[in-house]
Amino acid sequence: MKTYLDCIPCFFKQALLAARSATDDERAIKRILDRVGLLVPDIPLTATPPETARLLYRIVREETGVFDPLKRIKEESTRKALALYPSLKAEIEEAEDPLQQAVRIAIAGNVIDFGANPDLDLDSAVRAVLLRNFGIHHHKAFKEKLDQAETVLYLGDNAGETVFDRLLIETMGRPVTYVVREKPIINDATKEDALAAGLQEWAEVISSGCDAPGTILPQCSEEFRERFHSADLIISKGQGNFETLSEEKGPLFFLFMAKCPIIATHAGVEMGTLNLMEAQAS
Amino acid sequence: MKTYLDCIPCFFKQALLAARSATDDERAIKRILDRVGLLVPDIPLTATPPETARLLYRIVREETGVFDPLKRIKEESTRKALALYPSLKAEIEEAEDPLQQAVRIAIAGNVIDFGANPDLDLDSAVRAVLLRNFGIHHHKAFKEKLDQAETVLYLGDNAGETVFDRLLIETMGRPVTYVVREKPIINDATKEDALAAGLQEWAEVISSGCDAPGTILPQCSEEFRERFHSADLIISKGQGNFETLSEEKGPLFFLFMAKCPIIATHAGVEMGTLNLMEAQAS
Repeated sequence: MKTYLDCIPCFFKQALLAARSATDDERAIKRILDRVGLLVPDIPLTATPPETARLLYRIVREETGVFDPLKRIKEESTRKALALYPSLKAEIEEAEDPLQQAVRIAIAGNVIDFGANPDLDLDSAVRAVLLRNFGIHHHKAFKEKLDQAETVLYLGDNAGETVFDRLLIETMGRPVTYVVREKPIINDATKEDALAAGLQEWAEVISSGCDAPGTILPQCSEEFRERFHSADLIISKGQGNFETLSEEKGPLFFLFMAKCPIIATHAGVEMGTLNLMEAQAS
Repeated sequence: MKTYLDCIPCFFKQALLAARSATDDERAIKRILDRVGLLVPDIPLTATPPETARLLYRIVREETGVFDPLKRIKEESTRKALALYPSLKAEIEEAEDPLQQAVRIAIAGNVIDFGANPDLDLDSAVRAVLLRNFGIHHHKAFKEKLDQAETVLYLGDNAGETVFDRLLIETMGRPVTYVVREKPIINDATKEDALAAGLQEWAEVISSGCDAPGTILPQCSEEFRERFHSADLIISKGQGNFETLSEEKGPLFFLFMAKCPIIATHAGVEMGTLNLMEAQAS
């Protein structure tokens, strides 16, 4: 997905949120916004938004010296999600179509997002999201591809959401490689967050090699790219992975909640919907 | 009111909205946002937000060559407001406290704002706003100052809102000087818009000499400043005038709807409330 003009004000909003998570020094935050301002002429509309977001978070790190400002929030998200694990697990097991319910729950886990209330009542939030409609729901195609797949490459999104991903991975019953970001960025899951969610019991956890809040293939490791291009089935979680991979072809399914109006329009879905969307055929 | 860090993302939103009202050439709009980006390091947090907004709109004019992009929307707002005039006039005349009702209606006219739906059903919008609570309501002090005032200086805000101002001016029954912006900026009222609302029948219409979406005293004409400092009573309409004059002392009352969360916090009122707020005593 290209960068839309509407993404530019939003970059400043994101930079401000990120800066505030790292410091309360107003002058340091202003310096960060100044540097983001100077960056604007160099933002090509042809790049994907996470390519720019990556640069913003680098500026925040450089100006504040804080490497992982949301560490505590990520740990808290995982803790809250693990507390919900038993009831969600039971719900999947009792469902008429366990796979469909696990997909729905995995997408609902995408409700965990930076900027959300840190005192978020995750249980109520997830319950509310589970009642939402699907926008795009390519369940049949997904089930077919999964039935044929020997292995699955699963691209993670946020910390805490990892626990919801684990529920889907357990339900799929296939060998899975779970992919995390190379370095902390926003509240995206790193290896540490995946391990805290217990994913290593169900999947091999690897880094994409990319430190953007998405999967920018040219910036990923050679090892990851090989796995990406040879995978039987790729599950891509969240908006950031969708933004960076929406033009890719292949056995690729995007699972995300449409939380941004620009992304929703690009995907052709209503804001707030849950989506299981097959990529263009290869 | 100073510029808050949260104003910076909003400047880009405003620049984007303004640019889109002037052109649909995406490259021209990107050039505008680029120039706004380069401006960020020069935005002092000590300046008021309309001082920066003024520069944004200048960039939009320079890059697009469009001097008054919202001319048609302003004319439409005035036309719609004039259609409501008779029923609102009757409402004031029948009210137990006509002045209080006229103040309430004048503030409700502040619902007209750029970015609002151009197909806005003004009647319904105004009716809904009239049901809202007052945040700050210094009615007694206002009435006392008005009773003693021989003349009133009335600082206008948006085109169309001018008609609602006219209703208050008619109700006050005092000689009024109605002040408009020097040049078109956003949908703020210029002399042309005040005349279209019929204000010349009830007030002397003058320009502040300032072309910002607010009243930046050092940028106003000497003539206006003299009137400002010698006025018996000043009525300041809308957020832009509040942002630029909130530190002023004097026989000054701010009438505005709190539409921006930052301004609401600065003023100490809830979002969406109607406000009649006396300035600090001189």
